[in-house]
Amino acid sequence: MKNILIGQSGGPSVAINSSLAGVIKKGTQSVEIGTVYGARNGITGVINDNIVDLSTIASDDKIKILKQTPAMALGSCRYKLPPFQESSRQIYMQIEETLKKYDIGCFFYIGGNDSMDTVAKLDCFFKERKLDIKAIGIPKTIDNDLPVTDHTPGFGSSAKYLFNTVSEIICDSEIYPVKNVVIVEIMGRSAGWLTLAAGLPKILGGDSPQIIALPEVSFSQEEFISTIKKELTTKNTVVAVVSEGIKYASGEYVGMATKNGETDIFGHSYLSGVGKYLEMLVKDKIGCKVRSIELNVMQRCSSHLAALADIDEAFEIGVKAVEAALSGQSGVTLCFNRISDAPYEYSITTTDVNNIANKEKNVPPSWFDYNDPKVQKEIANYLLPLIKGNVIPIVNEQTGLPLYLKI
Amino acid sequence: MKNILIGQSGGPSVAINSSLAGVIKKGTQSVEIGTVYGARNGITGVINDNIVDLSTIASDDKIKILKQTPAMALGSCRYKLPPFQESSRQIYMQIEETLKKYDIGCFFYIGGNDSMDTVAKLDCFFKERKLDIKAIGIPKTIDNDLPVTDHTPGFGSSAKYLFNTVSEIICDSEIYPVKNVVIVEIMGRSAGWLTLAAGLPKILGGDSPQIIALPEVSFSQEEFISTIKKELTTKNTVVAVVSEGIKYASGEYVGMATKNGETDIFGHSYLSGVGKYLEMLVKDKIGCKVRSIELNVMQRCSSHLAALADIDEAFEIGVKAVEAALSGQSGVTLCFNRISDAPYEYSITTTDVNNIANKEKNVPPSWFDYNDPKVQKEIANYLLPLIKGNVIPIVNEQTGLPLYLKI
Repeated sequence: MKNILIGQSGGPSVAINSSLAGVIKKGTQSVEIGTVYGARNGITGVINDNIVDLSTIASDDKIKILKQTPAMALGSCRYKLPPFQESSRQIYMQIEETLKKYDIGCFFYIGGNDSMDTVAKLDCFFKERKLDIKAIGIPKTIDNDLPVTDHTPGFGSSAKYLFNTVSEIICDSEIYPVKNVVIVEIMGRSAGWLTLAAGLPKILGGDSPQIIALPEVSFSQEEFISTIKKELTTKNTVVAVVSEGIKYASGEYVGMATKNGETDIFGHSYLSGVGKYLEMLVKDKIGCKVRSIELNVMQRCSSHLAALADIDEAFEIGVKAVEAALSGQSGVTLCFNRISDAPYEYSITTTDVNNIANKEKNVPPSWFDYNDPKVQKEIANYLLPLIKGNVIPIVNEQTGLPLYLKI
Repeated sequence: MKNILIGQSGGPSVAINSSLAGVIKKGTQSVEIGTVYGARNGITGVINDNIVDLSTIASDDKIKILKQTPAMALGSCRYKLPPFQESSRQIYMQIEETLKKYDIGCFFYIGGNDSMDTVAKLDCFFKERKLDIKAIGIPKTIDNDLPVTDHTPGFGSSAKYLFNTVSEIICDSEIYPVKNVVIVEIMGRSAGWLTLAAGLPKILGGDSPQIIALPEVSFSQEEFISTIKKELTTKNTVVAVVSEGIKYASGEYVGMATKNGETDIFGHSYLSGVGKYLEMLVKDKIGCKVRSIELNVMQRCSSHLAALADIDEAFEIGVKAVEAALSGQSGVTLCFNRISDAPYEYSITTTDVNNIANKEKNVPPSWFDYNDPKVQKEIANYLLPLIKGNVIPIVNEQTGLPLYLKI
C-alpha cells in the first residue's frame, strides 16, 4: 500500500483521538505503508488540500497524550458530501487531486452515521473512477446509535461521565428539607442510550433518578407531572433525567415551541432547552422549587472521567482499521461484536459501510420498563463493561494542567 | 466537656463532609467528650430537635467514605437566626432546650459567612444565659469569600473542577473552522475566586480563555464585544469565563433584565442566566456561532474531581475545631494562615467569629490585570497549592457506582 490519510468528522468525543492514535501507531509501524497523513477538518481538508504529516507524532509519549486528548486533534467538519453527479463533479475531482498528490492508498474516516455516508460515497467514487484507493470507516459517536456494532467508541466515556455526575447531582439536590425537582437534560437526538446511562444510579437499584425519559418513548406532560406529584408525597426530591430529543405522541419535540425551528445542514432540528421548558412546566403545574441542568458539551469532552475500556477499545479499533485496509478491504466500517458480558469479551470485524451510513439504532422497546428488575439487569449487563476503568490523567507536574496534544 | 453537636449550613461543597468527618473522628477519640451528635438541616434541626447520634459512623471505613461524599450528609438549611430579643425568644428557648436535653457542651457549625452569623449570635446567647456551651465555626464555601482565612475548604476542589472542565471545553470548542464564541458561566455572587480558577488555563500561559470577567470589575458590554471582535480577527474561537455576579458600572447586574427580581431570604438577588444573556448579545452584535454553558451545581458537587489537598485540609480543620473547643475557646472560627507557597505550608488558628460573620473577601484589585505575567505568577502561586492531588474514588467494585455515606 502507498500512503494513508485519515480524517475526523461530526461531533467530538473523549475517545475519537484514541482511534486516531491507533491508526497513526499501526500505520507508522506497518512496513507496507509509507507516510501517515491527516486531513484537517475532515473531508473539507481533503477537498481544500489541508493535509498534515502525522509521522511526527508517532512516538509513544505523544501517542499516549493523544489518546487522552478530548475533542478532535485534526479538527472536524459538518460537511455532507453531495452525491457524485455532474453538478458536484468539481468537489470529487478536488478530492481525487489531493489523494493523488499525496499518493494515498487508503482514506480512513472516523465519525458517526453521517460520516459513514461520506465513506460509502467515496468508495463508490473510487470504484467508478477505477482508482486504487480504499475507503474505510471507523465508528465514533457518544450517542451509541450506530447499527450492527455492539456499541460505539466515545459512548462508554460519556456514559461514565453521566453516571458519575448524575450520582453527584442527586446528593447535591437532597440537602434541603423542601420539596424540589431537578431536571437533567442529556444529549442524544433520537437514541436514548446516554439517557439510560444517566439513569444508572436508579437502574443499579437506587431510588433516584425517579424519571428516565428516553426519546424512543412518547412523552406525556400529564404523566410526567403526575409521576412527580406522586413521588413528592413520600420524598422531598425528585430527579428526572431527560433526553434532549423527547417527543409527544404527535411527533413534535417537547419544548419546540421555545425554539426558532432552525435546522443544521443535515436537516436535524437544533435541540436544546427541553430541560428549561420542563422546569417552567413544573413551576407552573406544581409550584415547588425546580432546577434544570444542561450537561452541555461536558458530557462529550470530560476526558478526566474517560473510561479506560472505551479509550483502549477506540485505539484498538483504529489499529484494526489499518489491518482491514492492508487485507484489501474497502467500503467497510469496523464494528464491535460482543461475545459475552461476564467476563466481557468482544471481537472486532467489518461490515459493509452501507449497513451503517444514515441508519440509527435505538434502545430496544423491551428496555423501556426501567423499573423492572429483570430489565435493569439486562441494561446493567450491557452498560457496565463499557464504562469500566479509570484513565490516569497526564498532567503538567508543576501546575496540574492536563496535557493535550495539538496537531 | 459533655457531648458535642455539629450542623452543616448554606450551600453544599465537595469538602464539607470531610470537615464533618474530622469533627466526628476527633470527637469520638477524645476521652473528654461523650457522644458526638449531629443536627439535621443545620440550626433548624436544633430548633426542632432533629438530632442524630454520629458515633455509629466513626469507624475508619465509614469516615473514609464520608470524606468523599459530596454535598451535605446531615442536610442543610438556609435559615438565618433572628437577633436574640423578645420577639424571637421562643426560637432561642427551643435551641436551649435541645442543647440541654442532649447535654451539649459545644455546638459546631460548618458554613459560610451567613452561618458564622448564627455562631456569633449563639455565642452571645450562651454567654447572656450563662450556659456552659461553646459555639465554634468551621469555614466552608466554594466561593472562597471569607475574610481572615487564607482560603476556605471546598474552594480547592471547585477550582480544580473549573480548571479541568474549562480546559476540556476549550478543546471541544476549537474543532470547527468557523468563528465561534463560548461563554462559560461560573458561580460566585460577588467574589471572583472561582472565575479566576476557571481562567487558569490562560493564567498559566495558554491562549484561552481570552476573557475572564470577575464580579469585582465593572462590566462593559462595549468592551466585551470589541474584545471578542478583535480576538476573532486572528483566531476562530473565543472563550469567555464569566462570573454569575458581573455588574455594570451602575451597579446593576448584567442580564438582570431577563430575571424577575426575586431575592432569597438573605436578600441576595437570585442570579443565573448571565451566560444566556451574553450569548444573545454576541448573536445580536457579532452574529457568529455562540454557545453559553452554565456549569451549574457540577462545580460544587463533582467529588470525582476533588482536590486531595482540599479534602485533607477540610478534615484537619474539623479536628482542630474540636481541639479549640477542648482548649476552652468559643465564639471563634477556624482559619488557615499561609506560611509559604513553595513548599506550601500553613497553620490553622482561630479568629473571633465576628471577624468573618457577614463579611466578604474579594479578589484584590492588583490581580485584575490577568494578562500581566507578574500577576499571573502571583495568582498561580496562590491557587495551585489548593487544587493539588487526586482523591482515589471509592466505588462499588462490581458496578463502579461511587459509594456515598448516607446518615
